[in-house]
Amino acid sequence: MIKEIIAVIRTGKWPETLAKLEEAGVIGFSRQRVYGRGKQRGLRYSSDMEDQRGISFLPKWMVTMVVEDSKVDAVVEVLLKSNHTGEIGDGKIFICSVSDSVRIRTNESEEYAIN
Amino acid sequence: MIKEIIAVIRTGKWPETLAKLEEAGVIGFSRQRVYGRGKQRGLRYSSDMEDQRGISFLPKWMVTMVVEDSKVDAVVEVLLKSNHTGEIGDGKIFICSVSDSVRIRTNESEEYAIN
Amino acid sequence: MIKEIIAVIRTGKWPETLAKLEEAGVIGFSRQRVYGRGKQRGLRYSSDMEDQRGISFLPKWMVTMVVEDSKVDAVVEVLLKSNHTGEIGDGKIFICSVSDSVRIRTNESEEYAIN
Repeated sequence: MIKEIIAVIRTGKWPETLAKLEEAGVIGFSRQRVYGRGKQRGLRYSSDMEDQRGISFLPKWMVTMVVEDSKVDAVVEVLLKSNHTGEIGDGKIFICSVSDSVRIRTNESEEYAIN
Repeated sequence: MIKEIIAVIRTGKWPETLAKLEEAGVIGFSRQRVYGRGKQRGLRYSSDMEDQRGISFLPKWMVTMVVEDSKVDAVVEVLLKSNHTGEIGDGKIFICSVSDSVRIRTNESEEYAIN
Repeated sequence: MIKEIIAVIRTGKWPETLAKLEEAGVIGFSRQRVYGRGKQRGLRYSSDMEDQRGISFLPKWMVTMVVEDSKVDAVVEVLLKSNHTGEIGDGKIFICSVSDSVRIRTNESEEYAIN
């Protein structure tokens, strides 16, 4: 079985996170910019995005990986170590079940698609 | 247990949606621009994106929240009220199960990560 | 029951994929740009994005659809046919369960929201 791991992290933590994920053997993932408001609720100002009510959003990277069940704990550990500062805004990790996965090149499915 | 709620809404409905979600106690979410074609199938024209076959895509906001099971119904109600116009293109809401969730700052998991 | 199908594909394969998905009756989906590294690991260079460690990322389209269970196999088949080249970098398909779905305009839920 496979799982999707979604990490919302500080943009500045990306280089270290990438290096550590590589060391852990995660070679396939996607990354996109998202804007979230966690518990900080506008305490910090983001110059590149502000909604009409004057509340600021913090840009973050959302990094998505799909890994085998057996690797989930190790990957979460890597994400925690690379992104923990103890300050509000460290981000969150979500883990979701993936029913199936197919590699388009080879038509391999399930775990074979991601190894 | 926790759920991920994904709402694809009209961009113009965002300020009201944000205000109402705040009132409902949802303080953490992400927002990204997506392009979708629902039943309107190119009836309306989007100047900032058109694929090579001349079919237009409508830019929408995709708003993602993670909430406890007990809050799902209230949040869906807020999303419906803030975004319903009765016209084609009002958008959709999807609800997915999240297996686990970790707050990076504190290592809290499950419901504790999102409160 | 309904499923979310997420396809990460080459940007150049989008027009054909769109045409074939339309033929297969998939009229609602979203599309966003993502950057992923699969097995090619920096073998190819992406001019518009490079992280601080000099590893390149390949821009891809991430196309997300929500379809009824009964259509999943046909849609996966379309995605495979439209995107298979046999070369590394063809992309991947992920299938996830969706617990529920609501069409905002009509308050229809489950399968009725996506037909």
